[in-house]
Amino acid sequence: MTTPSLPMTVSMPGMPERVTIYEVGPRDGLQNEKTVVPVATKAEFVRRLLAAGLDTVELTSFVPQKWVPQLGDAEELLDLLGESGTGQRRPVLVPNERGLDRALEKGVSAIAIFGSATESFAQANLNRSVAESVEMFAPVVKRALDAGTWVRAYVSMCFGDPWEGPVPVTQVVDVCSRLMDLGCDQLSIGDTIGVGTAGHVLRLLDALEEAGIGTDQVGVHFHDTYGQALTNTLTALQRGVSVVDASTGGLGGCPYARSATGNLATEDLVWALDGLGIEHGADLQALVETSTWMAEQLGRPAPSRVVRALAGG
Amino acid sequence: MTTPSLPMTVSMPGMPERVTIYEVGPRDGLQNEKTVVPVATKAEFVRRLLAAGLDTVELTSFVPQKWVPQLGDAEELLDLLGESGTGQRRPVLVPNERGLDRALEKGVSAIAIFGSATESFAQANLNRSVAESVEMFAPVVKRALDAGTWVRAYVSMCFGDPWEGPVPVTQVVDVCSRLMDLGCDQLSIGDTIGVGTAGHVLRLLDALEEAGIGTDQVGVHFHDTYGQALTNTLTALQRGVSVVDASTGGLGGCPYARSATGNLATEDLVWALDGLGIEHGADLQALVETSTWMAEQLGRPAPSRVVRALAGG
Repeated sequence: MTTPSLPMTVSMPGMPERVTIYEVGPRDGLQNEKTVVPVATKAEFVRRLLAAGLDTVELTSFVPQKWVPQLGDAEELLDLLGESGTGQRRPVLVPNERGLDRALEKGVSAIAIFGSATESFAQANLNRSVAESVEMFAPVVKRALDAGTWVRAYVSMCFGDPWEGPVPVTQVVDVCSRLMDLGCDQLSIGDTIGVGTAGHVLRLLDALEEAGIGTDQVGVHFHDTYGQALTNTLTALQRGVSVVDASTGGLGGCPYARSATGNLATEDLVWALDGLGIEHGADLQALVETSTWMAEQLGRPAPSRVVRALAGG
Repeated sequence: MTTPSLPMTVSMPGMPERVTIYEVGPRDGLQNEKTVVPVATKAEFVRRLLAAGLDTVELTSFVPQKWVPQLGDAEELLDLLGESGTGQRRPVLVPNERGLDRALEKGVSAIAIFGSATESFAQANLNRSVAESVEMFAPVVKRALDAGTWVRAYVSMCFGDPWEGPVPVTQVVDVCSRLMDLGCDQLSIGDTIGVGTAGHVLRLLDALEEAGIGTDQVGVHFHDTYGQALTNTLTALQRGVSVVDASTGGLGGCPYARSATGNLATEDLVWALDGLGIEHGADLQALVETSTWMAEQLGRPAPSRVVRALAGG
């Protein structure tokens, strides 16, 4: 029996020619892992991801260490990365103006802010209402744009919320519009607890477009808690989206969701894109080797099915 | 925090109104588990699946016990099931005429045969060539049809083969045509090692239709080895297929694939169908409870993401 071959490439109508993989493993992935990874290991992780050809890698978060001990070493990480950690395709998360100050001091030129579509999660995660959080983000975005920095707005809980249940599409569009009105360059719609299905994805993308936020401004961020992440992603691609958030190995997940399964695994996405003949620039085998190595650092197997299949043999 | 609510229902253009879930857990699932489950437990498993509202349940295989010790109790199982184990929506697998004789003696009125799209797997699984296996199946199908029995033809390795790599679509269509020409009522196209992607699924369905095998005669059977099972399934549904093979809890898998992940989990499929507002008749919570119970019998957690999310809390 030979090694399973990569998927046969057969294109499909309506798909984009190229997809930008927005890798969230070092930030969203490691933030939600129990283990606090040493900064040298994080730098090695990022270097391996870049060597594997990933387009955009979100590096870390300039969040207070007491909030997220897993990412308390943002400055040290950027120092270790040097040149490879700079540029508009190396965003960092900033929670507030203090975080922006820290990021700008380190020469960062792309940031992401992290809003919520629901009041419950805004209170839980940001300790303020949705309106107050938009108010908090306004000067962050303005100052970042003035400094020539690229800005992404994450919106979490766009499909369901663990306290509120299903989230109305109009409510999501309202929050997205308020954040994009600040001047953000890109929106990332997040199904933080993974409950959404394909028709719901289309309805939200339609509603965003009606509100003036076209698919060229939107990235999608799906979690695999209920097994829907890849299906929802490909549905969004057929609807015109071409930026996809994914986490190498499937690292991370939402601490408020009830399952260990987290982000869409980059390798499972790459398998699908390779099969569909969609360009993305990443090398599957290098990603699998990186996930296998990272799983050793974390002391647990990677959730990605592709990694388990290809690394297990 | 509340219990995660079921997905919000939002329909999607081009989907069927109703899907027939063809449950393969008791046969394909248990056949590929290491543990040999007692026959009383199997009967209880089937009863629970039927009570959960599943449409069609493949019960067992009339295969020699020395080939598949896990299913060496087909007669006893049907005895225990009584009335609930009969009818055209309770198929059993038969490998040859001897298996058919045993099935007919027990009053079975639906059977499935199991062919291969590749010579390598035909030799490995059936110990004969593809042509010889079609020859072997011919009298099985004829005698079954003469007895008023419904007949399904599985074709395995329709997308990739562990020895031969990618399998040409023309080769798959040729084998499918030869089996359907015997008079079978339904075809099940299997991605036994889980390598296929969405465009490949569409190309095969197009090619089958050109050869006179319409989507109304086709069921799809995907494995989640590389994370593509649900995506490929929904792609087939949009192309007109309305019969989907799935295994409650994600039980089973192909012993020739390199990963532990096996069949599409019925619960993950049901989550997607519920989200899309597609009728199927099954109750998600009852399926999750059944998988949780079955996982205890097998001494290992269910691979289904929905089960892990809903049963873990």
